[in-house]
Amino acid sequence: MWAIKALFFDVFGTVVDWRSSIIRELGMFGSDKGIDADWADFADHWRSLYQPAMEEVRAGRRPWTILDVLHRESLNTLFAQFGIDGCTEAELDYVNSAWHRLDPWPDSVKGLTRLKQQFIVSTLSNGNTALLVNMAKRASLPWDVVLGAETAGAYKPTSQAYLRNIDSLGLTPDQCMMVAAHNDDLRAASAFGMRTAFVARPMEHGMMQASDLKAEDDWDVIANSITGLADTVLS
Amino acid sequence: MWAIKALFFDVFGTVVDWRSSIIRELGMFGSDKGIDADWADFADHWRSLYQPAMEEVRAGRRPWTILDVLHRESLNTLFAQFGIDGCTEAELDYVNSAWHRLDPWPDSVKGLTRLKQQFIVSTLSNGNTALLVNMAKRASLPWDVVLGAETAGAYKPTSQAYLRNIDSLGLTPDQCMMVAAHNDDLRAASAFGMRTAFVARPMEHGMMQASDLKAEDDWDVIANSITGLADTVLS
Repeated sequence: MWAIKALFFDVFGTVVDWRSSIIRELGMFGSDKGIDADWADFADHWRSLYQPAMEEVRAGRRPWTILDVLHRESLNTLFAQFGIDGCTEAELDYVNSAWHRLDPWPDSVKGLTRLKQQFIVSTLSNGNTALLVNMAKRASLPWDVVLGAETAGAYKPTSQAYLRNIDSLGLTPDQCMMVAAHNDDLRAASAFGMRTAFVARPMEHGMMQASDLKAEDDWDVIANSITGLADTVLS
Repeated sequence: MWAIKALFFDVFGTVVDWRSSIIRELGMFGSDKGIDADWADFADHWRSLYQPAMEEVRAGRRPWTILDVLHRESLNTLFAQFGIDGCTEAELDYVNSAWHRLDPWPDSVKGLTRLKQQFIVSTLSNGNTALLVNMAKRASLPWDVVLGAETAGAYKPTSQAYLRNIDSLGLTPDQCMMVAAHNDDLRAASAFGMRTAFVARPMEHGMMQASDLKAEDDWDVIANSITGLADTVLS
């Protein structure tokens, strides 16, 4: 369809269930260390510092910095805020690497494996390369290539984050489809000439999710899972 | 062994048989177009322009330029030199993309598939990302991640080509092994702190090959195939 050669996937929320995985990792760490906290609340706070941290880079107020480093700085902030102390630097590094151990949604591996037969399947994530590769190894995500903010040197939704990665595959934007559970990611991709697929993930933020519950625009494909996307786009 | 996390593979010559594949692609093109030439000689000339073209970039005499562009410039030179004319730009682009259609050596896919169970298997090639991804799709090379000169912005054997890619996986050089059929690639990798594996490819340059017939140093592993490497390093 539309001569598409590559599918670019947003990862956090679209391919993996970051929130449940982070709550699980924090809970296991807390249990080992005898630390009690509202880990769901902690996870939501950690994620809430994600966009402001990237905005410092996008706005040019700090030089290029990978997400592992931004996550680690946010973690330091939150450990202080939640009154958790007595952890070593190595323990903080381990907690931070929880973002490398996120579980896929139940349809992700199956859907990607089918789509890979016909298309280049790539990440297009704000996660750094090490994070995405370690996640893929653990979760058996069958990426053909791991692209994103680090390979572009720019965070979504800047144009460079999309266009530099498309260019590195020798493709034009109209040969590429952005797949995301977030309408704003698709709005940016569409503005830069990509095709778009919305995959609804109404539980990304848990039971009380209020945003991105449905497609807010006439995206090229609207699906409820990556296998559903495969049903639509595979010829 | 040695706490190795990632295996970085040289690609041209080590994983794929570039020479036979390029001769085949040139021959098919010539046959279609009614052009007769000594395509083996042409292939050897094309490859002989590879190091001088990269040297312009390495030496800082031209800005960063991907290999597809360097190959295309060399192709223009050789078509003139061999007296071949009457080809369109699109036809020249197609011939140039022969480097995206190289066949693996018979042991490559099997060896990489086994090694992938225990290690991150990555390219570390002077080929650009599009070339390596298209090659991998066609040949079923199961890379976990596609790294190389383009992701580093530097050609081997400069230190940046090795160290920037190692860093992007969050690893240190001693956690990484360079796998190559070329002693000079391993000498560089070793100087930058990587472990080394030599895979002999005595037919890379055809029957008359005179260089890299055997390991010239005490590399950590010396093998005759990627499956042989797997036999040695898999625990």
